[in-house]
Amino acid sequence: MPTFAARMIQANSDTIIALATPAGSGAIAVIRLSGPEAISITNKVFRGKDLNKQASHTIHFGTIREGETILDEVLVSLFVGPRSYTKENVVEISTHGSKYIIESIIKLMIRNGARAAKPGEFTLRAFLNGSLDLSQAEAVADLIASNSAASHQVALQQMRGGFSNELKVLREQLIHFASLIELELDFSEEDVEFANRDQLKQLILTITNVIYKLIRSFEQGNVMKNGLPAVIAGKPNVGKSTLLNALLNEERAIVSDIAGTTRDTIEDELTIGGILFRFIDTAGLRETEDIIEAKGVERTLEKMKQAKLIIYLVDPLQNMADIRSQIEEYQSLQIPSVFVVNKSDLLSPQQQQELAIFSPSYISAKNKEGIDELKDEILHRVNLHNISTDDVLVSNVRHLEALQRTFGSLERVLYGIDNPVTSDFLAMDIKQALYYLGEITGTVTTDDLLDNIFSKFCIGK
Amino acid sequence: MPTFAARMIQANSDTIIALATPAGSGAIAVIRLSGPEAISITNKVFRGKDLNKQASHTIHFGTIREGETILDEVLVSLFVGPRSYTKENVVEISTHGSKYIIESIIKLMIRNGARAAKPGEFTLRAFLNGSLDLSQAEAVADLIASNSAASHQVALQQMRGGFSNELKVLREQLIHFASLIELELDFSEEDVEFANRDQLKQLILTITNVIYKLIRSFEQGNVMKNGLPAVIAGKPNVGKSTLLNALLNEERAIVSDIAGTTRDTIEDELTIGGILFRFIDTAGLRETEDIIEAKGVERTLEKMKQAKLIIYLVDPLQNMADIRSQIEEYQSLQIPSVFVVNKSDLLSPQQQQELAIFSPSYISAKNKEGIDELKDEILHRVNLHNISTDDVLVSNVRHLEALQRTFGSLERVLYGIDNPVTSDFLAMDIKQALYYLGEITGTVTTDDLLDNIFSKFCIGK
Repeated sequence: MPTFAARMIQANSDTIIALATPAGSGAIAVIRLSGPEAISITNKVFRGKDLNKQASHTIHFGTIREGETILDEVLVSLFVGPRSYTKENVVEISTHGSKYIIESIIKLMIRNGARAAKPGEFTLRAFLNGSLDLSQAEAVADLIASNSAASHQVALQQMRGGFSNELKVLREQLIHFASLIELELDFSEEDVEFANRDQLKQLILTITNVIYKLIRSFEQGNVMKNGLPAVIAGKPNVGKSTLLNALLNEERAIVSDIAGTTRDTIEDELTIGGILFRFIDTAGLRETEDIIEAKGVERTLEKMKQAKLIIYLVDPLQNMADIRSQIEEYQSLQIPSVFVVNKSDLLSPQQQQELAIFSPSYISAKNKEGIDELKDEILHRVNLHNISTDDVLVSNVRHLEALQRTFGSLERVLYGIDNPVTSDFLAMDIKQALYYLGEITGTVTTDDLLDNIFSKFCIGK
Repeated sequence: MPTFAARMIQANSDTIIALATPAGSGAIAVIRLSGPEAISITNKVFRGKDLNKQASHTIHFGTIREGETILDEVLVSLFVGPRSYTKENVVEISTHGSKYIIESIIKLMIRNGARAAKPGEFTLRAFLNGSLDLSQAEAVADLIASNSAASHQVALQQMRGGFSNELKVLREQLIHFASLIELELDFSEEDVEFANRDQLKQLILTITNVIYKLIRSFEQGNVMKNGLPAVIAGKPNVGKSTLLNALLNEERAIVSDIAGTTRDTIEDELTIGGILFRFIDTAGLRETEDIIEAKGVERTLEKMKQAKLIIYLVDPLQNMADIRSQIEEYQSLQIPSVFVVNKSDLLSPQQQQELAIFSPSYISAKNKEGIDELKDEILHRVNLHNISTDDVLVSNVRHLEALQRTFGSLERVLYGIDNPVTSDFLAMDIKQALYYLGEITGTVTTDDLLDNIFSKFCIGK
């Protein structure tokens, strides 16, 4: 692995290339180059206008040739650095979407001096060249992976610098504080206190408060990014799968408007009102009539405890005592829940009366009745649907951990202010806090960290 | 289905939209719009420069917004008609490659007046607006599907108009001939012969000769487009699969330079020297020790007869009489063949001497020895590798059939010239020939024909 310094030099000296669009058949494909020679290498194999003489942000039609053999008719888009994603010269070649053409052009460019890009290398360059900070770069990957309105908003907010700006303010306040403490250190033998201890304490309290809120936002951010773990629970044959299908139906139809997009959808994921729900398999509960005794049920219950939502499904064919004991069982888990009566057309007036105290949602999964109302009820219970898109949410475990460490350091600062601790210890803890905050945006960074982040990117980004 | 006329009107009045890059995760995706409102619809939801006021072939950074919610940061490429693929206004929106973003933007554009494009509709518009003729439009689909140097060259040649130009010349000559005949018809009562019958005959002979060559080129064109059917034949355990893997190896390595491109490679397809080989399953021969008697072998032999190449694989563990009878069996099929001795390291000097008369290729599939030499030998036998990229090859069954019909009409003309047939019959046959030729380039066309061609395209092309 090249060192960070070596990488910085490399980022300025060589030109990388990769396919930027998904592999597979499509009308067009886009091959991207970035680096000082991006335009001149392309120009060597391009027959059309002289690309070296064209303005940034212009598009040129021509052919890519290997000797006299035409590989394709293409459109070449030019971005002259620093007016590009990476701040380097960037060329995007729009070709016909054939694997053969893509391979041939990339190989031709490599023979002409380009190098195959590593995963995330374009975004790494954008980061190294100051186009994005580290948390913004991470958000690019999240944005591409986002598959619901919620995860999309969290990622886009982060990519556009919402989180970074929040941290920037915190860092500036901490640096101001640190400078006051440092000043005291310089004059330590004179026992001067430049920084009013009460004001300092107030500042640190304000900062820790913001950091605490960010840490707390992780639970929500994580759910919005990765989906809300949910369980549809109930006895065998009450209609759990039918309900899941009925819930899936609408979203499926929308997705299938665009051919091929459902390709890698996982059966048990479901978006309701823009929130992704990950349904936990409750197969364990289907295998047995007795919730308590059966083997494997414990593990299912364990999983259910991790759920953020339980949908209890019953049907009128069960006896009332059984339903009641089931509800009590689930309620003991203390997880937000929606109690749903399926096959509501079979419900006797007496049953309806007896069930009323549990305020159930009545549906017929088979006839798709009551499904929209149930969706509203589900969103109401998880209470995530009315999050403002302006709220900064932490959705990345790495950021969470850095924030927690920052919080720890700041708590030591607070302790130090209230206790007879010398300024140099305070200064050390402040610096530590600044270090952890800096890790999030990449102000402070290591090779391992960068490798870890960018190796998870797809090639071409 | 709208009629052709309705389509022409529609092509001029509405704006279509589709994802132009493959579905799936990638760094970027490109959404394409074409039609009179392509730029103005995009401008409604784009925050950045006023797109209505920008020059053609320029790129603009900005955000796509649904109300105040940002859907993505995008690059918008503008192509002002007629300087575009379809000759209409075209906009390409380069977004982050997230399914959620793609869907959201397409839905937003549809709400703002665009319509989801049907398969091939962009290329259909390019055809209707005179940007491409029909055989060129068909070549676009072939180009995207091309997966070898050979199929790529055939498609590119056709897309760039090589075939069309050849037909254009033929059509012009026929039209010249027809006009002379028509002239005779106008003066038929005076019994004048404007056209010298011998010169006419010579002209038609020249044209039929070119058409005959084009018809004959189909076999080669089809092989180059769809692959050459080949068989690796041999007794069980002589190393057929090992050989296939050894042959695949090099190409595989090249393909896997680019992540994801091998995704849908079929195990039994193999490119050697730019020619695609489709290996026919010879499982039937593996099931039995006796080639002649076993059930199912007949079908395998039937398939082998369709093969354009047979690779006979034997190994030194077989007895010599067996090998000899096998070779005679295969040779009776009269198909180009390569005789290969595997496990050549186990070969005794005596065996080597006995086999020499068959001029075999010696390999060790397991140790990957002799594979390059075998590839050269294979290419030598199929004799396709030295086709000039300037040769016009017919690779489309539709074109073949139209050429065959043209040929039939021209034969009737030739018969007419040599026999006492009146000019009006000659004129009819000439017109028929012109009609069939016109079907290829789309000078003559029907709705069914267009539907049939463009419905096979992918959406977004």
